Amino acid sequence: MMEKLKVYVDRMSQPSRAILIFCRLNGIDFEEVQIDLSKRHHLSPQFTEVNPLQKVPAILHGNFNLFESHAILAYLASAFPGIADHWYPTDVFRRAKINSVLDWHHSNLRYGAVNYVINTVLGPALGRPLNPKAAAEAEKVLLSSLSKLEDIWLNGDGRFLLGAFQPSIADLSLVCELTQLEVLDEKDRDRILSPYKKVLRWIKDTKAATNPHFDEMHNILYRAKKKFQQQRSRVAKTETETSNEIGGHSKM
Amino acid sequence: MMEKLKVYVDRMSQPSRAILIFCRLNGIDFEEVQIDLSKRHHLSPQFTEVNPLQKVPAILHGNFNLFESHAILAYLASAFPGIADHWYPTDVFRRAKINSVLDWHHSNLRYGAVNYVINTVLGPALGRPLNPKAAAEAEKVLLSSLSKLEDIWLNGDGRFLLGAFQPSIADLSLVCELTQLEVLDEKDRDRILSPYKKVLRWIKDTKAATNPHFDEMHNILYRAKKKFQQQRSRVAKTETETSNEIGGHSKM
Repeated sequence: MMEKLKVYVDRMSQPSRAILIFCRLNGIDFEEVQIDLSKRHHLSPQFTEVNPLQKVPAILHGNFNLFESHAILAYLASAFPGIADHWYPTDVFRRAKINSVLDWHHSNLRYGAVNYVINTVLGPALGRPLNPKAAAEAEKVLLSSLSKLEDIWLNGDGRFLLGAFQPSIADLSLVCELTQLEVLDEKDRDRILSPYKKVLRWIKDTKAATNPHFDEMHNILYRAKKKFQQQRSRVAKTETETSNEIGGHSKM
Repeated sequence: MMEKLKVYVDRMSQPSRAILIFCRLNGIDFEEVQIDLSKRHHLSPQFTEVNPLQKVPAILHGNFNLFESHAILAYLASAFPGIADHWYPTDVFRRAKINSVLDWHHSNLRYGAVNYVINTVLGPALGRPLNPKAAAEAEKVLLSSLSKLEDIWLNGDGRFLLGAFQPSIADLSLVCELTQLEVLDEKDRDRILSPYKKVLRWIKDTKAATNPHFDEMHNILYRAKKKFQQQRSRVAKTETETSNEIGGHSKM
């Protein structure tokens, strides 16, 4: 028998969460190995042996190591017995379409979402300054990707990508990506997402289809969201007080 | 019988060339439909029906349309009979590793190479100004990707990616991407590629394994290379003459 699957993740990373949710949903027996990016665990020699690219997520299955989240999801769906076909259909046409969304994702939705969030909120936690110009460029890519989701990828009879009636690994990957927008300021998040009604419904449907695992794996993000909200309201309060004082002075 | 495969391409696009080479190499009977990006054919209503994202390459196989070059390559390798297994192995482990390189490619080698070439040479032909700052950022990603290729992806006994003894769709995709560097100024190209000896050998080996189709599909690029060289030497000549004149004056 093969050794138990090891899954190397930081739950703050959205592709890490997608892998964890997939394993839980499908009853895959695995050990979660935490690689804390903020403590630079991904640069350790032990982890570098599993993933020489020093990124999470990665897996070790017996002596087979693998990285890149889409490749991992496709592998898990194929290598473990009894995974429902809708996750990564064996039908050559349906599988090709799912590969097509997954490929599109990299330079579009993922590029836009990651760079927007890093340059507006998460950067400092990863040792990078916020960059409003880069955020504005990322927002353009993000909005264009959302409109492609709304008008193209979510077309069809079913509630999931490509008009499917049940979710695939693409739904899981893309919805985990979008869920990181939770850490944004509420106003920003609304401005970005609210025009895309089908996208909003699809996020809700994918969560519902993958709960309670979806919420469990996102708890860390929901906590981070609260922390960032509190920081923002402290900053806002200080700014109001300062501006009141200035206002007071100017009336003198 | 299914209708003949239609392949929508602009041979100036590197993923288009990869698809064409794959079809020729594997004796796939297809019709090449030219979508001239410089004439904005990709925005036509007819092509938008095939690919609503309005990008090349795309295929139409009977009434099945597909876009994103990696998804297309995987589809062709699976849907057509008699394609040699090494292109996209059915073995779950080998396939997973190839998917892993293909996924990595998007935000690394492709991102770096495309943005470097567009911001140093090709931009104006596509209606975009050259941008030295964006070129410098792209170069960083490109160099980092080349070193990952050299130290990680090209490790192993064989001459191809992942130590394989025969090429896969990943070799084809990545080498086509790198071959676009041909249009660069010779000095830039040397500076970028010459430190990576394994990469250089692998490019040569992949060309050899896929010729004469590789060179045939790249003829358009080799012609563009000459054109850009002539432009550069005209500019250099004018600059030398101008600087000689200035030199002459300063000696007076």
